[in-house]
Amino acid sequence: MIQYSLIFNILSALIAIVSFFMFIPLGIAIYGQNTEVVLAFLYTIVPTVVVCVVVYLATRPYRRRYLRAKEGFLLVTLSWLAASAIGALPFFISGEIPAYTDAFFETISGFTTTGASILTDIEAMSPALLFWRSLTHWLGGMGIVVLTVAILPILGVGGAQLMRAESPGPTLEKISPKVAETAKILWLIYLGLTVLETALLMFGGMNLFDALTHTFGTLATGGFSPKAASVGHYNSAYIDIVITVFMVAAGLNFGLYFRALQGRFRDLIKNTEFLAYLAIFGGSTLILAFSLNKVVYQGFAESLRYAGFQSATVLTTTGYATADFDLWPAFSKYILFFLMFIGGCSGSTGGGIKVIRIVTLFKQAVNEMKYLFRHKGVHVVRINGEPVRKDFIYTVVGFFTLYMLCLLVTTAVVSTGGYDLVTSFSSALVTVGNIGPGFAKVGPTMNYAFYEPYIKWVLSIAMLVGRLEVYTVLVLLVPSFWRR
Amino acid sequence: MIQYSLIFNILSALIAIVSFFMFIPLGIAIYGQNTEVVLAFLYTIVPTVVVCVVVYLATRPYRRRYLRAKEGFLLVTLSWLAASAIGALPFFISGEIPAYTDAFFETISGFTTTGASILTDIEAMSPALLFWRSLTHWLGGMGIVVLTVAILPILGVGGAQLMRAESPGPTLEKISPKVAETAKILWLIYLGLTVLETALLMFGGMNLFDALTHTFGTLATGGFSPKAASVGHYNSAYIDIVITVFMVAAGLNFGLYFRALQGRFRDLIKNTEFLAYLAIFGGSTLILAFSLNKVVYQGFAESLRYAGFQSATVLTTTGYATADFDLWPAFSKYILFFLMFIGGCSGSTGGGIKVIRIVTLFKQAVNEMKYLFRHKGVHVVRINGEPVRKDFIYTVVGFFTLYMLCLLVTTAVVSTGGYDLVTSFSSALVTVGNIGPGFAKVGPTMNYAFYEPYIKWVLSIAMLVGRLEVYTVLVLLVPSFWRR
Ligand SMILES: [K+]
Ligand SMILES: [K+]
Repeated sequence: MIQYSLIFNILSALIAIVSFFMFIPLGIAIYGQNTEVVLAFLYTIVPTVVVCVVVYLATRPYRRRYLRAKEGFLLVTLSWLAASAIGALPFFISGEIPAYTDAFFETISGFTTTGASILTDIEAMSPALLFWRSLTHWLGGMGIVVLTVAILPILGVGGAQLMRAESPGPTLEKISPKVAETAKILWLIYLGLTVLETALLMFGGMNLFDALTHTFGTLATGGFSPKAASVGHYNSAYIDIVITVFMVAAGLNFGLYFRALQGRFRDLIKNTEFLAYLAIFGGSTLILAFSLNKVVYQGFAESLRYAGFQSATVLTTTGYATADFDLWPAFSKYILFFLMFIGGCSGSTGGGIKVIRIVTLFKQAVNEMKYLFRHKGVHVVRINGEPVRKDFIYTVVGFFTLYMLCLLVTTAVVSTGGYDLVTSFSSALVTVGNIGPGFAKVGPTMNYAFYEPYIKWVLSIAMLVGRLEVYTVLVLLVPSFWRR
Repeated sequence: MIQYSLIFNILSALIAIVSFFMFIPLGIAIYGQNTEVVLAFLYTIVPTVVVCVVVYLATRPYRRRYLRAKEGFLLVTLSWLAASAIGALPFFISGEIPAYTDAFFETISGFTTTGASILTDIEAMSPALLFWRSLTHWLGGMGIVVLTVAILPILGVGGAQLMRAESPGPTLEKISPKVAETAKILWLIYLGLTVLETALLMFGGMNLFDALTHTFGTLATGGFSPKAASVGHYNSAYIDIVITVFMVAAGLNFGLYFRALQGRFRDLIKNTEFLAYLAIFGGSTLILAFSLNKVVYQGFAESLRYAGFQSATVLTTTGYATADFDLWPAFSKYILFFLMFIGGCSGSTGGGIKVIRIVTLFKQAVNEMKYLFRHKGVHVVRINGEPVRKDFIYTVVGFFTLYMLCLLVTTAVVSTGGYDLVTSFSSALVTVGNIGPGFAKVGPTMNYAFYEPYIKWVLSIAMLVGRLEVYTVLVLLVPSFWRR
């Protein structure tokens, strides 16, 4: 039996916390004397908090101390859905996004750190709502880090499994002090990076509002910008470099910061995913820079600046833009297309398939080849210098297959609207991969406003499925999940 | 030590056999009094046979009775390369294909049963060379069936592994009588199907030449047609249906015909791949028919005819055309794009990833999901009603990863020519998958003539890698393959 009272108990607490964060944009709206937006936030916050308190109190007596795997999956999925459904209300009630479908799309795009937008005129939005829009990224990013580093491994999902020394079993009780402690440290790291990037951006000439919103978009690898021209608006090499560095930092496994803080630097140097991630970023930056030099940009330094920014924004699945890469030469465009499949590290705010999975698949493939002509001796895949557990490879395979399946199904749905293959497939790729901008009709200077409502809903779900490591949501579709 | 004398001994025998088959187009050229083509064949056959006899006799004394795995991979790769290099000569020497790069591309496209063509005016070619072009399909298809059903499983490659009751080890000696016997039966089945389809096509009004060449293209899932408009030239529902049925038949595992001949029909009904293949074909035909009805074609019967033909031609990776699917609605086009990833059954002449691998990946993914919420009990992937060996899943994963890697690398190379993503990616997909026609610049009514020579060479290698189940060729790139 799935114990719904327990799920709703935790859910109501989480949603109440999200509502409290609406006080910040509410403050901005009050300061800007924007009555409509003030009311929109109040009409959202008050009923939400009331409902949350009632649900919390009503479900409290039935609360168990165990959270089982099934309840965990349901809770996580419902958290993102509920946060998006409620987070969309201020946009809708204020009338700044007239259709609820669009408001929901924008908000789930925020909480899933996708950054795909339906806004056709970003700068016409009120500052309070633009701030809320970027804040959904920051909250979503924080949620994802806690989820993937601290919670999903316990439920048996995700690359972080690798780091699990022994299986602690699926009950929350045993590890809840540990989860709380880990979450607290992660939260401090996230907060520290936020303060640091904001300060550095302000040093580069941004005002506090711009610096904060762009920091939210960077650290969450989200990509929403309050500027129509995205980061390109500032046309500053300094800002480009700061954001490039922090995007790369946000694509790292947050567990590694944890280790670095403990002084365990040797763990970093031995970390396969960390090294592969840096190699991919460095390699693609160089290849891109050479392919752009004298073709799109005049000097190599300029080519390197744009190449680094675009490599970082696509590899980490952030989606900020300083150039319309859809106009780049075919080969340069293709490198970015290729990076879209990879994504950040496990336990980062980045989306995509994740570096660790790509590396594992590749190592497994090479291993299989060696096995073909050397039957003797045991060939094992090594990650971080240790032989990998066989289960891990199975999990990766399952993930990869389901990920591809999501891409295929999403592409099929989009193509029913009559859109060309590049538009359909890249829409799927950048929503499931939580990237944001794609190619053709959904290129970096485009938006998702033109899609039919049913396509917007499907893309919203695609973002959710991709963000929650595919398994978390798809497991709900297995009939036996609901049995007994 | 790799024993090259043994490899060249077998290779020279194989190439001599291929040369003997050139006597048929030679006969056609003599009958047509086409002196240039007669000479082109003689200039190819005579030196080739002389060299083969010399090499064969020279290497015979050093011949061992064992063929080891390494030698097997090298032999298979060299066979296809050498057959293509020599098979290209008549096209080149006669001057009908002026560039050797083009002649090689056309011939390896034939022997790998890809059917991608550089010919801009097919019907201007002499009948003898058109016949030879189609004959390369037939020989290549036969080679692939023997390879995948009888030889690769011994080397540890391919879906057919699944059928191997016990591992006979990597020596050819132990099983050579069995290989010879199996090859003989497969040859008879292939010949029987050839006679049957040729007769049925002649009954539909084709002359012997057209019936034979189209049969070669069908059974090899090759797709070369001596007509510019491909099968659409005949505009006959009867011919469309006959070819559809035989394409589907050619995409079946030839081991199943073997079992059917032995009266083991229960094996067919229990065969997971067989059932999945028919389900995919049936499903895509119906979906396509509904998506085309009243949009492209007027009646449902007509829609079904074109839908069935296109489903079969793409799923089995044949590549014959009766309609320019690049002009179809986005969704219909997308269904075909999706089928391009699947391909035929293992042990058929079809290319692609193969149905068994797709089914295995999918079952493994569902299994992983169940494992997430039901830790108790053993979950196993079942194929043909039996639990699958864990190694098989590893092989499938390795294959899938390498296949994707080939697609990515090939796309990258094509995109350096400045071609758009759809052209670049679909060129990779249809060469690695041995399909032939793709989308955009390489659509069903287009050809590959416009590509730069270096791209043609890379696509030629892509066809070879895809055709030889990826592993067979890529294993040669592992440095330790050449060590010791
Ligand atoms: K993003
Ligand atoms: K083909």
